[in-house]
Amino acid sequence: MAASHGHRATAAGVLARCRELVRPALAEAVGRLHPWAGEMAAYALGWSDATGTPDPGGSEGKGVRAALAVLGAEAVGADGGVAGAVAVELVHTFSLIHDDIMDGDGLRRTRPAVWKAYGTGPAVLAGDALLALAVQSLAEAPGPWTAAAVRHLSGTLNALVSGQAEDLRFEQRPWSGPGAVEPEQYRSMAEHKTGALLGCALGLGAVLGGAPAGTVSVLERAGRHLGVAFQAVDDLLGIWGDTAVTGKPVHGDLRQRKKTYPVLAALVGGGKAAQELAVLLESPGLLDGTAAARAAALVEEAGGRTATREEARRHLDTARRSLREASLTPAAAGDLDTLFTSLLDRSR
Amino acid sequence: MAASHGHRATAAGVLARCRELVRPALAEAVGRLHPWAGEMAAYALGWSDATGTPDPGGSEGKGVRAALAVLGAEAVGADGGVAGAVAVELVHTFSLIHDDIMDGDGLRRTRPAVWKAYGTGPAVLAGDALLALAVQSLAEAPGPWTAAAVRHLSGTLNALVSGQAEDLRFEQRPWSGPGAVEPEQYRSMAEHKTGALLGCALGLGAVLGGAPAGTVSVLERAGRHLGVAFQAVDDLLGIWGDTAVTGKPVHGDLRQRKKTYPVLAALVGGGKAAQELAVLLESPGLLDGTAAARAAALVEEAGGRTATREEARRHLDTARRSLREASLTPAAAGDLDTLFTSLLDRSR
Repeated sequence: MAASHGHRATAAGVLARCRELVRPALAEAVGRLHPWAGEMAAYALGWSDATGTPDPGGSEGKGVRAALAVLGAEAVGADGGVAGAVAVELVHTFSLIHDDIMDGDGLRRTRPAVWKAYGTGPAVLAGDALLALAVQSLAEAPGPWTAAAVRHLSGTLNALVSGQAEDLRFEQRPWSGPGAVEPEQYRSMAEHKTGALLGCALGLGAVLGGAPAGTVSVLERAGRHLGVAFQAVDDLLGIWGDTAVTGKPVHGDLRQRKKTYPVLAALVGGGKAAQELAVLLESPGLLDGTAAARAAALVEEAGGRTATREEARRHLDTARRSLREASLTPAAAGDLDTLFTSLLDRSR
Repeated sequence: MAASHGHRATAAGVLARCRELVRPALAEAVGRLHPWAGEMAAYALGWSDATGTPDPGGSEGKGVRAALAVLGAEAVGADGGVAGAVAVELVHTFSLIHDDIMDGDGLRRTRPAVWKAYGTGPAVLAGDALLALAVQSLAEAPGPWTAAAVRHLSGTLNALVSGQAEDLRFEQRPWSGPGAVEPEQYRSMAEHKTGALLGCALGLGAVLGGAPAGTVSVLERAGRHLGVAFQAVDDLLGIWGDTAVTGKPVHGDLRQRKKTYPVLAALVGGGKAAQELAVLLESPGLLDGTAAARAAALVEEAGGRTATREEARRHLDTARRSLREASLTPAAAGDLDTLFTSLLDRSR
């Protein structure tokens, strides 16, 4: 395949190009914040350390959402890719800051989470500031489709918050028996928590460019499925990821007893391994290293790892098929396909 | 005066009428939230207790912002009062929930704050959900001025967050000497934290109705000044309010060493009382009841109470004068004047 598309950029190249394109507008937007909120935002974005000193080799995110917004606009020949990208990156950063507070996650991209570095109250403030800025930056985008774009974004915010609510509620539910979280319920949560924003990113540029509703909805659907696949890969990395690359502890999600797709799929798989896994997970307290390693082995034995790989593959395939339903500029469609595929094989 | 306006409603009547008008749309909006977020929102709005049981005699707010939004629209003969009112009440509720987390305030309207009743993480989520819903509800308002209205609201959100950031930063600054918070800096914070949303409320209906920019800006300015006056009265109540009515401890703001206008004005007043006050406030730890009572007496002796009353009066007068600059429907202008004046004489 690669030979017939000799001019195709690599996924890393696509991400880098989009990051370059979006960076000035994103920095300008962040510059409008109250200086203290701006400092925390720059830290969260990986642009500076916790003393406010620029940290160019820092812990910047991959910029997947920004790239989707840029490519979605390019794919329909619309302007507005950058405006959409700024909004979704700001929303993404807001959600990471607040989710880390809610989940009690002290580490984010190998560094202390914002609430660990600055305190919980200031982290609440920083998230609020970024969310407000996201809406403001999009509401100020020129053109006749601004209101429609803000409607899309705010609907996405609502879905995002619902997904986070579902995720937090999962914590209180049992591992087995009636009331246990089913893999389908987890997928619905992931569609809200991760899929909604990826779908919004991919569709937003098309909305701002006044593309037909059919095209917008194809792009959004593709993004949502990509999001579910993305979350499944995240879940695999949360258990079997290389800690040197992810910056998270070995079997981290198991130590914290997170209800993720591999575990839930293993538990419904039945059999001896699933039963032993349930007993292990239902024991009180944190899981130590040995117990977490045993749990990881049981998840694998009960088929949870394979099921999650298949879940990711299936949703990626659907996402790629969706893209082909719309009539998109070939270059952008090629870049999107490259990016989509790479997100399945990532190591962080 | 009252005799020549025999048909004029009382302030309580104006608030009740607007609350009635807004309530169904507000309840419908809250009904769109994830059920858990919706339960916390209903608690925060004073509609139910912490078990989710409806509590009609509960701790509903006065609904000042909703009333301003309704009256602002009526004043320019525009529709959209209710849509604006829903958005600003949702924003107000969001900001109370998150501010209580940041300020560590455990009590709100005589009941536990949301973070005390549901936990910090869930309270972060509830605030996020309300903020997203506010934007969504406004973005879905019909008519050609929706994008302009969302721009107004999002600019307000930015100001609100800046005001909260300034307020939090004040905590770290000294009571006296270089770096001490000056009364003017406090006023600027209050203009952001309280004035911006009141100004937005009053102007939003006019924006949605496509009123001329001049009219919108007169309404917004009036609301901003009202907000500064409102905050000054809040500060007086925070020290000298009747605890049976406010539901807050005696001299509460002094016990918590909050940097409020009366205290800052007293400190810059100079003289013996101001000096003794500074020493008292600079002593470590919480102030006990006796020390707080002494501090309150010193604030009064150094002129802080009078200065704050004058501050409130001055900004209320400016707000009322502003209103008279625009050509408004007489009935709504009368209701606004009644409401403005009542906010200065309130006891909670």
